Parts: sequence; C-alpha cells; structure tokens
Amino acid sequence: MKPGKISVLAPGLIGGSVALACARAFPDSTLFVWSRKKESLAPIQKSLPKAKTGTDLSGATGSDIVVLGAPAPVLADLVRSLLPHLGAQTLVTDVASVKASVEKELAPLLQGRARWIGSHPMAGSEDSGFAAARADLFQGAPVLLTPGKSIGADTFRDASVFWQALGARVIQLDPEEHDRQVARISHLPHAVAAALVRAAGTSGLPVAGPGYRDTTRVAAGPSDMWAEILLGNRTEVLASLRDLRQGVEQLATALEKQDRPTLVKFLDEAAQIRRNLSGS
Amino acid sequence: MKPGKISVLAPGLIGGSVALACARAFPDSTLFVWSRKKESLAPIQKSLPKAKTGTDLSGATGSDIVVLGAPAPVLADLVRSLLPHLGAQTLVTDVASVKASVEKELAPLLQGRARWIGSHPMAGSEDSGFAAARADLFQGAPVLLTPGKSIGADTFRDASVFWQALGARVIQLDPEEHDRQVARISHLPHAVAAALVRAAGTSGLPVAGPGYRDTTRVAAGPSDMWAEILLGNRTEVLASLRDLRQGVEQLATALEKQDRPTLVKFLDEAAQIRRNLSGS
Repeated sequence: MKPGKISVLAPGLIGGSVALACARAFPDSTLFVWSRKKESLAPIQKSLPKAKTGTDLSGATGSDIVVLGAPAPVLADLVRSLLPHLGAQTLVTDVASVKASVEKELAPLLQGRARWIGSHPMAGSEDSGFAAARADLFQGAPVLLTPGKSIGADTFRDASVFWQALGARVIQLDPEEHDRQVARISHLPHAVAAALVRAAGTSGLPVAGPGYRDTTRVAAGPSDMWAEILLGNRTEVLASLRDLRQGVEQLATALEKQDRPTLVKFLDEAAQIRRNLSGS
Repeated sequence: MKPGKISVLAPGLIGGSVALACARAFPDSTLFVWSRKKESLAPIQKSLPKAKTGTDLSGATGSDIVVLGAPAPVLADLVRSLLPHLGAQTLVTDVASVKASVEKELAPLLQGRARWIGSHPMAGSEDSGFAAARADLFQGAPVLLTPGKSIGADTFRDASVFWQALGARVIQLDPEEHDRQVARISHLPHAVAAALVRAAGTSGLPVAGPGYRDTTRVAAGPSDMWAEILLGNRTEVLASLRDLRQGVEQLATALEKQDRPTLVKFLDEAAQIRRNLSGS
C-alpha cells in the first residue's frame, strides 16, 4: 500500500514521531498534521516544512491513513469530530498504551465509517511532546496491533505494512490480552520505578551508579500521562502489583531469616528470565 | 603518588578492571596479579602480558598499593594470609559493595601493618568475572572511599589520587553511612528488579520495550554475588524494602480508589527526584 495522503492528529512524542517517520518513509505522500492548538503548529511546520498543518479536522479529508496521537481518554471525542471527514476505506489507528477500553469505545463509532484497528507502539522514553519526537523512534520497536472481532483482513494487513514501513516489527494481540501483558511488561515497571525512586530518597543521589539510573529511568516520565495509563489499565496493573508485593515479601523473609538458598533461587530465577530476553 | 608496584588480588570484574586500568594509567609501575586458582592466570596473562601473575601471595611483596578484589566474606582470610607480605606504608584497599562489616573486620587486622582504607567503586554491570573486565570501567564512575576512625590523612589522599588516576570521581562516606545509602541506591534497585522480572513473568517478553529492559537490566546479574551483597547489608536493605512496600501499597490504594490527584502526586514527586539526577 502506498498511501496518497496520511494525517496525523494531536502529535505528541509518539504521534510526532509517526509524522516525522512518514515524511521519510513516504516522501511522495501528502502529510497533514492537525493540532487542537494553533500555537503547537509552528514547531511542526519547522520540522516538517512540506507537510500541511491546521487546527481544522477537515484538513484530514481524503486521507488513506489517519493516525490518532491523542491519549486514550479523549480519543472518542476526537473521533466523533473526525467522522464527517473519513471515507469508508480510510485506515484509522491510534497509539494509546491501553487497548481494551479504546477498542470498546472506538470500534462502534467507526463501524462502517472507516477501517479501524488499534495500535500501540512500544517506543518512546521519559521525554514527551512533539519536541522529543524522532523520525527513527520506531526502528526495530515492537508495535502491538490489536484487531477487534469485526475487523477485515485487509485492515490488519494494511496497518502492518504501514508500521513496518516506519521500521517497526508488528505483533498481533487481542485488546484484552494486550492490556494483561502490557500491565506487566510496561505499566508495572513504571509504577515500581516510581516507588523505587521514592524509597531510595535523595540522600544517596551523588553516589547513584548505572544500576540505579537504568532501573529508575522511566520514573522521570510525564506524570499526567502515566497516571492516565495506570488508571486506564488499573485492573491488570493492580493484579501485577499484587504479584510484585508477594515477591518483595518473599525476598524480605529470606533476608530476615538469612536463608541464602532461597535468596539465591529467587534471584537466579529472575536472572534466567531476564537473560533469555534477546538484546540487553 | 607514582606507585612503583601495584598488586591486584583475586580479580573478578572489578579487580580485573582495576588491573587493566592500572596497566594503562601507570605504564611504568610493576603490576602483580594474584589468583587463588592457577587456571585463572592464563586469561590474565593474555590480557596483561607485561604483568607478573601467580598463586603465591609472596608475589605482592614490596607493593605500594594492594587492591583486594575478593568478595566481602573472604576478605579477612585473604588479609591474614597477606600480612607477612605487607609493609607499614603499603596502601591496602578493597572493592566490596558493603563497607561497615569489612571495616570492622579489616581495620584491626591491618592496624600498624599497612595503610588501610575501604573502597567501593560504583561501576560494573550484569556481567561478572575477569572476562568482563574493562580498562575504562572507572571512567567517570563514583568510587566511594570509606575511611575508618583511625585513618591517617595521607591514606585517604593517596587512595583518592589512585582512583582518580583510573578515571573515577571520589566520594567520601563513613562506612555505616555508605551501607545506608548504597542499600537504597544500589541494593534495593537490584532486589526490586528481580521481584519485577518475576512478577512480569515470561508471557509478555516478546513485547518488552526499552522501559522493561532498562528497569530490569540489573536482574540478570550473578545471583551468588548479589545474594552475598544483600545478606551482607541486610539490615539496611530490609529497611529500604519496608519503605518500598509502603510506597507500592500507597500506589495500589490510589489505583483502587481511582484517586487521580494522589496518583499524579505520587508519580510527580518521583519524577522530580529522578529528573534532578544529572545525566540520564
């Protein structure tokens, strides 16, 4: 699929990186970037001189692909305003980190009005906003595609081809399974990194080495966005926090009892899992 | 201070890196590397062709500096065997991650027999052993020097100059304060990373992004070594684990109640602390 026109709406770090990556991957396509606020358009125009930009959603008319960069809680409102400007063949996707609730809200709105599929690019960093966007953000990054039950085969295929063109590797998950797995592999680490920073306090910071830096890096991320993500996936996040608390208690008990074999086993099982992860 | 002779005993990742860094920083000094096992000497000789190596501690005779690379539990035995080969002016230091217990054991043994000061280089990685050693491991790394009460001023100065010559920045702490701070900034993150890997499980690994990778990297470290470190500093580690558990409970409560302001505050306070850490 060679898209004639791509629209990116509400570009933050992820949406902005989609726009930058599209400009590079599809140099012959028309790119439209929409922002609710007029003052957000200047930096976008500067980074993407060939793109069209605007605060009116009618600019998205005629798009082959529309990427929604907005956070989950505002997606439904954005889509309602967007509906008049969509065609039945327009591929619509998002970049939110929770998928079950987004699927539940957006699939009925877009049914018959466009070709909808949820996306969650597992990329980004502790930075946020368009200023942190990078054209190569998706190089080698997993993008989780979460097709709903009524999706057509061509929708999944076209969305895959699109993300692959931006350098991503596509993984398919259903929306509920997505939320379960991402709670443990992304939301839990974030929550725990924040708790870790607070427990570590500030007095030791001058001596902080690479272990502390790596382990807590994500805790510097935007708090509003993360509060939204954790609340949006709270059932699964709470389940994973229960497992974590149980593990921490096991560890504390082994330390109290000076039970070296249990402690080594606890650490070793974790080390085995971690070492099995390819790369570092 | 230009040391005429440096000895590195029992080189693992840290001790081995000291030996490699010394060969570069002090090319005119004699370097002696001791290992308990004869079969460990071949790779050392290969990496350090100009160094003398051996399994007999008498090889350390006449050293200006002796660096003990062995883990905390075996340091006292090593030092007892080493005593006949030390001079009163020999600077003796170690690289163990716990300091109060090491100070308590080694200071009386070395009193009047050598110039003793504890060192803790905050460097290294999830790898271990001489094979992972690197000449540049201490470039920009903090090295915590933990002088005891009866130390002479020249001992602290000479140890500082030595570590600085290897590229490190020296930070002074008393041994007990060291253990308190390092529990929170190094041992706690390791313990929590292990608990996190276990709670995250294996099913989500194909979708693991940079957040999970960073947060859990240290959990791949050598389990035996880490069990020793956590047990060696268990009082302080347990105190920090209690604070962590309290934080995790606060977080879970805020999620259960869907208390967004408390959640944002929790995350934001952590983000502020983490952002205040220079570098990334």
